[in-house]
Amino acid sequence: MYVSLRDVAARAGVSFQTAGKVLNGRSGVVSASTRERILKAAADLGYVPNAMARGLVRQSSVTVGVVADDFADLAVSQFVLAAQRAAASRGHAALISSVHAGVDAATAVRKLLEYRVDGILVAAPTLEDDPVLGEVLRGRLPVVSFNRVHGGGIPTIGSDHAVTGTLAAEHLLGLGHRRIGTITGPQSRQVVGTRTRGFRAVLDAADVPLPDQRVVEADWTYEGGWSATHRLLDADPSVTAVFVHNDTMAVGVLKALHERGLDLPAECSVVGCDDLSFAGYLVPPLTTVRIPFQETGERAAQLLVDRIGGKAIPSRNLLPVELVVRESTSPPNR
Amino acid sequence: MYVSLRDVAARAGVSFQTAGKVLNGRSGVVSASTRERILKAAADLGYVPNAMARGLVRQSSVTVGVVADDFADLAVSQFVLAAQRAAASRGHAALISSVHAGVDAATAVRKLLEYRVDGILVAAPTLEDDPVLGEVLRGRLPVVSFNRVHGGGIPTIGSDHAVTGTLAAEHLLGLGHRRIGTITGPQSRQVVGTRTRGFRAVLDAADVPLPDQRVVEADWTYEGGWSATHRLLDADPSVTAVFVHNDTMAVGVLKALHERGLDLPAECSVVGCDDLSFAGYLVPPLTTVRIPFQETGERAAQLLVDRIGGKAIPSRNLLPVELVVRESTSPPNR
Repeated sequence: MYVSLRDVAARAGVSFQTAGKVLNGRSGVVSASTRERILKAAADLGYVPNAMARGLVRQSSVTVGVVADDFADLAVSQFVLAAQRAAASRGHAALISSVHAGVDAATAVRKLLEYRVDGILVAAPTLEDDPVLGEVLRGRLPVVSFNRVHGGGIPTIGSDHAVTGTLAAEHLLGLGHRRIGTITGPQSRQVVGTRTRGFRAVLDAADVPLPDQRVVEADWTYEGGWSATHRLLDADPSVTAVFVHNDTMAVGVLKALHERGLDLPAECSVVGCDDLSFAGYLVPPLTTVRIPFQETGERAAQLLVDRIGGKAIPSRNLLPVELVVRESTSPPNR
Repeated sequence: MYVSLRDVAARAGVSFQTAGKVLNGRSGVVSASTRERILKAAADLGYVPNAMARGLVRQSSVTVGVVADDFADLAVSQFVLAAQRAAASRGHAALISSVHAGVDAATAVRKLLEYRVDGILVAAPTLEDDPVLGEVLRGRLPVVSFNRVHGGGIPTIGSDHAVTGTLAAEHLLGLGHRRIGTITGPQSRQVVGTRTRGFRAVLDAADVPLPDQRVVEADWTYEGGWSATHRLLDADPSVTAVFVHNDTMAVGVLKALHERGLDLPAECSVVGCDDLSFAGYLVPPLTTVRIPFQETGERAAQLLVDRIGGKAIPSRNLLPVELVVRESTSPPNR
């Protein structure tokens, strides 16, 4: 199926080694006319260099491996796409290996190692507590991770989740809300704890309570946000504002609030988190904290390529978040 | 960074060739004790086999290359994820190469060829008219494409877009609508022409007109669906139902209809297309034609692996679509 270096060498009447050196870009190996003959033989036969063999010869371009857990998670897919684009725009290849039912972290990483990647980007938030991921990654080759990796020792990149919670709380307090609830991601996830602590600290400082019944855990999904809203308002119908830990759940939150016949935002304000591309097209358009997934992906690729090139990089890299005010928040009318 | 086969061979006291044969799974090459010694040396040193070298020795597992154009397009990302899962569950590796600003079709395909993939899955609907993609793919190795490839000769897999239009039209006519509009994807795309023809044929048969002013072209985005709806209703405010060519645009359509103060679905019914995961969580929950992206991705991977294994596969593979009725459609009240 593939034309081999031997085929090219035979057609050009040179040795396998000579053909390899010329096709892998070494200069001064042979005369100009021989070089010409080898290049023509390669073109005539449709020869494509072997990435692995070529990697042994020169290292100007690198191959970045990506371990991702779920492309249906828009945070992961946006990060991976941006990282891959950033790598490609610098001439680097990116290979993606995914972790999911049937493929564990060790297998996904091993696949990248078999392809001799020069470094690995991790975008696998569901694996932050998986000790295996840390074990197979540590000490082997350059790695930059979008999520915490169990056991540490891996440089991470992300946004400041405590500030995310702070911005949401300050916005709602500033509008005059005092009975505030929150719908969180899974409590086992580090981001959820950090975000909730930032949120709670601002409410505490203003003497606004956040009792347990106003903190409802959900699972990042449309369905989870929808059912959590009904649980929250069943437990405490007096709530006038909700901070939701991602925009996907916020879609379900808006649906549930519509179902309960609440006038939005007057009777219930909603602040999301992410600023996904649909946020401005919801009814009402969603106020949310923007997480810079694209910039994070670009910066991650750049850090990894720097690290592969031998540069030191910071062990923790935080990108700023910002509040985007739209129409799902207003002063409370009850 | 990587332990080489030479390192393993030296530690085990055998030749490079012998170590390679044993580590690539050939049996009967050496005695059981030598084999044991080689495997132990490999484990001690943390040796990971080289996928390319291994590929030369045995072909029981294959590497599937994927050319994708835009992971932000949920149709593409769902298809790719499903295909990758299906390949991985059978022990096959998947390498993804993406086409985007700065990386053209030829470069993306070439990258996969450099990694010696055994076959290629294409999920690049924006490239259906790109002659280069067809040229670099044809005749080289097994390929299955999610979209039409310019110049033909590549087996395709997808769903029946004419039926998609038929189902939407029959549903709206059955509810009693007679003043019906449609918001399409870009008219240059084959799927848009096919879907519109299927839709129009049913209206024609029922003597329901579809004048040009009720066919508005948009660009698959939230924003595009939103602005197209305002253009449609500015041109013809009497429209009581809209068929939208994807669910993403339908989000913008619902927003625009809310902005115009229309009572949904009584004053304007909406039928989408895709059945993305958020469809049931919109306000109102979206009636839509389900396109089986996941099943398509799984089937594509299976066809490609079959083809790599030398089996004949059909040149055109269509999966069925179905109407999912939710709450965005009802009989017209005006």
